[in-house]
Amino acid sequence: MNLILKNARVVSMSSGADGYQPSSPQDIVIEDGKIVSISCSNHKAHASEVEQPSTDNSADYITYDCKNKLITPGLIDCHTHLVFAGNRANEFEQRLNGVSYTDIAKQGGGILATVTATRAAKESELVEMALPRLDGLLRSGVTSIEVKSGYGLTLEDELKMLRAAKALENHRRIKITTTLLAAHAVPPEYKEQPDRYIDLVCQEIIPKAAEQGLADAVDVFCESIGFNLEQTERVFAVAKAHGLAIKGHTEQLSNMGGSALAAKYGALSVDHVEYLDETGVKALAESGTIATLLPGAFYFLKETQQPPIALLREHKIPMAIATDLNPGTSPFADLTLMMNMSCTLFGTTPEEALRGVTCNAAAAIGESQTKGKVEIGYAADLAIWNIDHPADLSYQVGVPHLHKRIVNGEVCHDSI
Amino acid sequence: MNLILKNARVVSMSSGADGYQPSSPQDIVIEDGKIVSISCSNHKAHASEVEQPSTDNSADYITYDCKNKLITPGLIDCHTHLVFAGNRANEFEQRLNGVSYTDIAKQGGGILATVTATRAAKESELVEMALPRLDGLLRSGVTSIEVKSGYGLTLEDELKMLRAAKALENHRRIKITTTLLAAHAVPPEYKEQPDRYIDLVCQEIIPKAAEQGLADAVDVFCESIGFNLEQTERVFAVAKAHGLAIKGHTEQLSNMGGSALAAKYGALSVDHVEYLDETGVKALAESGTIATLLPGAFYFLKETQQPPIALLREHKIPMAIATDLNPGTSPFADLTLMMNMSCTLFGTTPEEALRGVTCNAAAAIGESQTKGKVEIGYAADLAIWNIDHPADLSYQVGVPHLHKRIVNGEVCHDSI
Ligand SMILES: [Zn+2]
Ligand SMILES: [Zn+2]
Repeated sequence: MNLILKNARVVSMSSGADGYQPSSPQDIVIEDGKIVSISCSNHKAHASEVEQPSTDNSADYITYDCKNKLITPGLIDCHTHLVFAGNRANEFEQRLNGVSYTDIAKQGGGILATVTATRAAKESELVEMALPRLDGLLRSGVTSIEVKSGYGLTLEDELKMLRAAKALENHRRIKITTTLLAAHAVPPEYKEQPDRYIDLVCQEIIPKAAEQGLADAVDVFCESIGFNLEQTERVFAVAKAHGLAIKGHTEQLSNMGGSALAAKYGALSVDHVEYLDETGVKALAESGTIATLLPGAFYFLKETQQPPIALLREHKIPMAIATDLNPGTSPFADLTLMMNMSCTLFGTTPEEALRGVTCNAAAAIGESQTKGKVEIGYAADLAIWNIDHPADLSYQVGVPHLHKRIVNGEVCHDSI
Repeated sequence: MNLILKNARVVSMSSGADGYQPSSPQDIVIEDGKIVSISCSNHKAHASEVEQPSTDNSADYITYDCKNKLITPGLIDCHTHLVFAGNRANEFEQRLNGVSYTDIAKQGGGILATVTATRAAKESELVEMALPRLDGLLRSGVTSIEVKSGYGLTLEDELKMLRAAKALENHRRIKITTTLLAAHAVPPEYKEQPDRYIDLVCQEIIPKAAEQGLADAVDVFCESIGFNLEQTERVFAVAKAHGLAIKGHTEQLSNMGGSALAAKYGALSVDHVEYLDETGVKALAESGTIATLLPGAFYFLKETQQPPIALLREHKIPMAIATDLNPGTSPFADLTLMMNMSCTLFGTTPEEALRGVTCNAAAAIGESQTKGKVEIGYAADLAIWNIDHPADLSYQVGVPHLHKRIVNGEVCHDSI
């Protein structure tokens, strides 16, 4: 079944200023989940094309009248830790009641609380627990989500997380890409020998994930409280050898050079990047790597070091924006809230924010030629909005702006 | 028709630490929109009470099984500017593209843009435009909302705004209280003679609003860019003479003493209060005035002066939290986001945040004996949640936590 969207004011997110300007009403013809034509609704010549789609049987087409509503590419959340077990509201509450991080860690809190709960959960339980968070993202018009592992930290538990992430596609109209983040933290069993854990990641976990087709990319938390440059490079090298894409949690809390290292390995994106300097930015420019801003974590951790927006602009590094949805540092299941935070806290423009969750987010998940734009040949993953101008998406938070999502050429009737 | 809620884990928000702890499953009997009994679901003696409600005809009762979900008082947003016309996303975008506040003001931007659009709108149009914002608040479990005028700034337009606010009750299951904020800004016609505008407010607008029963309270923006102490006091005195409650926008940008003045007039609440000092706090303690925190505006304006939380705690001033929903400084239609911002940016605890949108917000709208607690005699305005612990409401944002709202003893089937 194919789809014709009538009377859509298109914000295509194509390159150039026009890509952000709503068009006059257009008709969009979709076949097999892809956009095959876009033509002016009121233009007779084009209208006749719409009347005669490329297959013979016009009964194969459903028509949906957008009634001059605004349509954008479906939003893409290119950095999440959506799948996890446990609930760390208690830690949030303890901290606000004056309990120190140290004391919370002594009780088994922090990331290890999530690791313990995630290891104990079945794959189906991980799916169930992720669904309400996923529903929050769907409400904000998301049609593609990247989901990372990283709370299993054993071969079996990392693969279980990746399978749970993929399985979300069976429960909601959503496209999932997965990233193996086994190098998220040193698991307690390897506390004194992180290099041995990296051996496990390189020799067993990456090969198995690649062999089973469970991961699209590999990511490392490169930080003083994560993994050092040498350990990070070992992981990147093995990932590349297995044909997997590279991503990095880099320059979040200090400038370690992780972003430049990731760029050297042709990373799709480097994420956080508050402490990124000009050397790092130049490395990204050479490799064509996306800089992903994660303002939710910046806000939640009350950080003060802002990512180098001016430098990124100067060197024309495309910026993506994502929720970083996770229980410890960014418990936010609303991508438009992140757009607002990026503008309010980092000073990006609403156009940069929208590119950050569409075309640039698509590039950050390796889909720059297939997602994130309303163009012929692109996936028919779209969002129809009750708004006047695309800036509304960054400006107002909490107003139910979304009219409908379209995934793979089907209008979703989400009950969210 | 009356209602029996079965198996509700009640977070009553009664005074004392217990009020924040979820109870064992309870049955709540509601008659004529009020809670008439709360009893243990598994306790035989009490269960028999539930079987025999106080009227003879048990067919008059609908039963709703809460299935051990958590139930709290319906949230109360005690400070909003929900009713307005126009859209200032364009200004937001201009500022982020480097246009100065001065240049935006020269174009007729800022609050005057909203005044111009609001004056031009019909009452019915104001209602239509407010509904999507209202729907955002309903999603966050809100059952009562205070709505201010203040974008009309003429007799007719201020009354029109108040009527539009009240009319929202005809479109959604919601309770509205209204506040006349004619002293929000000096209208352009009175630019050089603000005292003459205050004459109009005192001699015509307040008396008319009181006579027509359109306002529950009167508010003033007491600030260097608003009205001075003398002007503010004139308004408060007239409001009091007309039997209306008093509220104040005070100490937002500087310490002018507006909060102490409001306290002297027995104000229900003083709102913003970032610059409130100990003298002001002591005045609130004497008058029993609520301090309302508005973290959305603090965040959106990138303010750095935090409200004096420690002093407020020390002097036992009850704190409310509200959205301040407005187009210029707080475009946020999500009350749980404000709870998170209050905790993250101001350091309130999740319990303070929940009291801030229930019992203390009720006091801020003059309903401390009737709303904001799950107690016998209180209004059956409730929220049923898909959460484990009340701290989840402050912790996670964007996850669809709300199961159902109950307004006036009726389960709402919101399609939001
Ligand atoms: Zn992350
Ligand atoms: Zn206000």
